[in-house]
Amino acid sequence: MPDRQRADARRNYARILAVAEEEVAAHGSGASLEQIARTAGVGSATVRRHFPTRYALLEAVSRHRIEALCVRAHDLTGTGDSRTALLEWLSDVVAYCVAARGLAAALSYDDAGSDPVHENACSAALAEAAAPLLRRAAQDGAVTAGVTVADLITLAVGIALATEHHPDPAARADRLFRLTVAGLSPQS
Amino acid sequence: MPDRQRADARRNYARILAVAEEEVAAHGSGASLEQIARTAGVGSATVRRHFPTRYALLEAVSRHRIEALCVRAHDLTGTGDSRTALLEWLSDVVAYCVAARGLAAALSYDDAGSDPVHENACSAALAEAAAPLLRRAAQDGAVTAGVTVADLITLAVGIALATEHHPDPAARADRLFRLTVAGLSPQS
Repeated sequence: MPDRQRADARRNYARILAVAEEEVAAHGSGASLEQIARTAGVGSATVRRHFPTRYALLEAVSRHRIEALCVRAHDLTGTGDSRTALLEWLSDVVAYCVAARGLAAALSYDDAGSDPVHENACSAALAEAAAPLLRRAAQDGAVTAGVTVADLITLAVGIALATEHHPDPAARADRLFRLTVAGLSPQS
Repeated sequence: MPDRQRADARRNYARILAVAEEEVAAHGSGASLEQIARTAGVGSATVRRHFPTRYALLEAVSRHRIEALCVRAHDLTGTGDSRTALLEWLSDVVAYCVAARGLAAALSYDDAGSDPVHENACSAALAEAAAPLLRRAAQDGAVTAGVTVADLITLAVGIALATEHHPDPAARADRLFRLTVAGLSPQS
């Protein structure tokens, strides 16, 4: 493939992925592939060449968002107060789960989804990226002892799943996230 | 219908419902109707006469469990420590959501499920039954101010949904429920 064509293909791939992220955020995992092609200004055949199945496209969206969450974890590590840094990251995870709706379960450590390889890779990447954030917060006594990254992510996924059909899922999820952080009944 | 036949029909209904509860707890909402008929010792036609569709059967199971949760809320009202009473009830709600797995979403205040009439009736019944428990705990300062029954139930549903495919959903859900009660990071 000549360089020019290769560069075009890369641009198309990136554009389709960016549009797909917006469509998934707006319409969940049932987002229309035809609409994605139209908005990206490419033909359906081009979408299919890059992403042979809906699942492949959703997986790419999910992987891209998870990479962003890993980068965010690295950026937050060592900055400011350890509790604030951890909760800021976790709030991003909740927002991601809400935006990605249909994808939320794919993020779950607990979910035996249809592609365990992708899922385990995501789980491992997030666990590794968030470990220093969680370790620092635990050392500072800013997080309940024994809490794992898996606990944090499973709660985020649960909040996203339970608020999926709310008229304002983002606001509803944020309220429940704040409750979960502070505790329903802080006297123990 | 003669009294004898009517009494037989009532017994069959109760027996099918009891077996269906166990099958749903063991296998989720995909529980086999044929297996339910066999275990209940009746024919498939008898199951269909009482519950024309799978949905009708699941709805009856759900309603029966929710009635039990309402009775439990009434029983706990006024007994012992208000925090303990509320959390005991909520722990039963989580256990119900886990056992009823496929049904968990039907309990959600936030879920626009396929039968809003049934769902709203369940929500209203639970909210009414749990209101005195929550009010007493709030008066005692044992629950974070502003928490609603809807918040509590949505969190329970989320925990059940996110742990649905875990090898030991009940234990996993219980751990997350305890975390939610105490808070991830109780310093606010």
